[in-house]
Amino acid sequence: MNSKEFGFVRLDDCMADDISVVNAARVSFAKTQQEMDASAVGLINFLMRERHGTPFEHNAFRFHIKCPVFVAREWFRHRIGSFNEFSTRYSEVSDDFFIPRKDEVRSQIGKPGSYTFQIIDGEIATNTVDMIDEANNNAYASYKKLLEMGVAKELARTVLPVSMYTQFYWTVNARSLMNFLSLRLAESAQLDIRNYAKSVELIFADKMPTTYKIWIENGKICP
Amino acid sequence: MNSKEFGFVRLDDCMADDISVVNAARVSFAKTQQEMDASAVGLINFLMRERHGTPFEHNAFRFHIKCPVFVAREWFRHRIGSFNEFSTRYSEVSDDFFIPRKDEVRSQIGKPGSYTFQIIDGEIATNTVDMIDEANNNAYASYKKLLEMGVAKELARTVLPVSMYTQFYWTVNARSLMNFLSLRLAESAQLDIRNYAKSVELIFADKMPTTYKIWIENGKICP
Amino acid sequence: MNSKEFGFVRLDDCMADDISVVNAARVSFAKTQQEMDASAVGLINFLMRERHGTPFEHNAFRFHIKCPVFVAREWFRHRIGSFNEFSTRYSEVSDDFFIPRKDEVRSQIGKPGSYTFQIIDGEIATNTVDMIDEANNNAYASYKKLLEMGVAKELARTVLPVSMYTQFYWTVNARSLMNFLSLRLAESAQLDIRNYAKSVELIFADKMPTTYKIWIENGKICP
Amino acid sequence: MNSKEFGFVRLDDCMADDISVVNAARVSFAKTQQEMDASAVGLINFLMRERHGTPFEHNAFRFHIKCPVFVAREWFRHRIGSFNEFSTRYSEVSDDFFIPRKDEVRSQIGKPGSYTFQIIDGEIATNTVDMIDEANNNAYASYKKLLEMGVAKELARTVLPVSMYTQFYWTVNARSLMNFLSLRLAESAQLDIRNYAKSVELIFADKMPTTYKIWIENGKICP
Repeated sequence: MNSKEFGFVRLDDCMADDISVVNAARVSFAKTQQEMDASAVGLINFLMRERHGTPFEHNAFRFHIKCPVFVAREWFRHRIGSFNEFSTRYSEVSDDFFIPRKDEVRSQIGKPGSYTFQIIDGEIATNTVDMIDEANNNAYASYKKLLEMGVAKELARTVLPVSMYTQFYWTVNARSLMNFLSLRLAESAQLDIRNYAKSVELIFADKMPTTYKIWIENGKICP
Repeated sequence: MNSKEFGFVRLDDCMADDISVVNAARVSFAKTQQEMDASAVGLINFLMRERHGTPFEHNAFRFHIKCPVFVAREWFRHRIGSFNEFSTRYSEVSDDFFIPRKDEVRSQIGKPGSYTFQIIDGEIATNTVDMIDEANNNAYASYKKLLEMGVAKELARTVLPVSMYTQFYWTVNARSLMNFLSLRLAESAQLDIRNYAKSVELIFADKMPTTYKIWIENGKICP
Repeated sequence: MNSKEFGFVRLDDCMADDISVVNAARVSFAKTQQEMDASAVGLINFLMRERHGTPFEHNAFRFHIKCPVFVAREWFRHRIGSFNEFSTRYSEVSDDFFIPRKDEVRSQIGKPGSYTFQIIDGEIATNTVDMIDEANNNAYASYKKLLEMGVAKELARTVLPVSMYTQFYWTVNARSLMNFLSLRLAESAQLDIRNYAKSVELIFADKMPTTYKIWIENGKICP
Repeated sequence: MNSKEFGFVRLDDCMADDISVVNAARVSFAKTQQEMDASAVGLINFLMRERHGTPFEHNAFRFHIKCPVFVAREWFRHRIGSFNEFSTRYSEVSDDFFIPRKDEVRSQIGKPGSYTFQIIDGEIATNTVDMIDEANNNAYASYKKLLEMGVAKELARTVLPVSMYTQFYWTVNARSLMNFLSLRLAESAQLDIRNYAKSVELIFADKMPTTYKIWIENGKICP
């Protein structure tokens, strides 16, 4: 059986627009403006190209995210930002695990750091999905059994696989967000975090469209 | 003559309320709520007392500040936050310097780190204000003369005193803000940055009143 | 069967002594000294008590650590420091999982954040250890099976439990280290990370004995 | 008259070599090695090119630096690192100010952010040096007079120019150091901080020669 509830990326709140980039940069000249115009676009282009990163920091995105632990483990490596996460010491984990779709089952080819992936078809893919589902179910049954026996949550949870879903709040500014996206949208990034990164990217593009467009045009750099 | 224009602390924008602290903490239990209530107040109290700092990070204050360079130098030591400042390489500095009020003229007594200050009255205070004003004016006259001679701004500005006003954007979350306030409101802090810190404190109290109140009750700690 | 290889905390290299704290602080007075003396001890005491944290940052400890993923997950929340970790995308995981000792099996009592724990004796403890061992073995068998079927490591590893051992390098300065220890030695901290924190504490005490002693005397604060 | 004592960049201590980069990266494969070899060089090249920055963080350089305040102001903008600085609140400032050499006197041409500079010859250069020297001397005389009148150091120092020398300790890892050098060695950087950056660069090259060489070959990027 498939995951009961899938992950999500939800924007909880933000303080983010393109004009804040412009005004942060223009404080160098003691100037400020209310609206984007052609010179403001030119300035963002200059800042991105020349990697003047600080003006992209005067904003904040607060995300509420649900994803598997193996994805969260990569996410939390990004230190410029704030995290609070679901606690498996405090709360009982629900029966909710990542299972790949049949068409996502893949083998890897090549060397670490430059893997290419090949989709595995047919029976092996079906068996893979079934085996992962079964392994998750078995682990969860052990977990529940341990809880029933009176074992502390922090000890019982040790049997749960990294496919279990977690959730967290993540607050981050656009500069750190672009760094995250540069790394996690890349072809070498893990497939599943790439999918989450794409959701983050859409929200970023919606809130700071000029910055986003110029970031794309500059090859998704880390300014 | 006195300073032409005084400093200021202006809140440019913010994403800040008490409930965000509560929701960031409650993600540990996969819970969320819309409004502050008694249990939410109790939770903030618990977080503050136990120094669980991360839930206080999911917010942002963007300030626009004008202050003397000797104050800004202390301010920029706070690394958890974002700064963009007026550039004396790019822009001409205006004739705008910090001068103490007559009743702020003081001597220091005791050892570094535990100074006490004594207000100096009468003629010495008047002379001090006059001397500082004159020194500022002389420095500014030299600066203008150097610019007239064609000297680059970045070289001419080297003669300007640290009393010159600068301005900057500062974006910071409540946790780092409380750290700033803990240090810069203290009696051992420099008088002038304390005055700026008091303005920052009022804005913080206005936007996150429960967090502020509990922070005060807990002795202005750094959670 | 029990874990094949246990975790460790190994100091790989360091640049750390007490005198560096003193010299960093004394640069305020443009002074420097080669050896600790009574005034140097007094200064460290003053810095700790008054929470002047920055002089404790001019040093570095590089640790090589092996621990279960559920411990590493807490460790990586400490953002002031540097991490590089074993990759389960690049490398095959070995058959090496955390299993509690029989006398560590426990139940929790009370509310989250203020749990107390009670050791579980007798048959339940034995059964717990056996069940955890069996769950780990089953998960590992599934993992190996998936690899044999040609499934990519990054997908096969999703069935592995958070009890699997990982290893990483951690480079950190004494200020951040004291923060880590304050939180992870606390009675409310998770038992297993507390054990690791105790190993880190011994190394810190060995390299910076005066700082360590004063930190203990001041109640293990975060300066 | 010229500056009594010039600035300096002094390496106080370090924990830095190329092999630490390799071992931090190879923990991904649970491997370690003692000496650099061809594959280690290849790995550093890969890490730099692919902007895998974290392996470059497991080292530390502790510098003792003396420079003018206008240079220190730019230096302290680099937040990933530790600073302790001379205090003009605690200590009396000595008669020690930056004065340009006659052949450094320059005018700027073009727009902010892309200035070019032209050396000013002859009498104007001589006059510039003299005027800056005189302005420094006048400011210092006012400062000393204020101290003699009993005014607190923190108030008296407000008349001192940003050309005054300060000193500080700076502890930083190679990743942050490369970021600093990328920005402060650039042609668009201020002339004086470029000179300091060149001294930092020599020390970096000496301690981590392979990393340095590959960083140069990759266009002085920020990995």
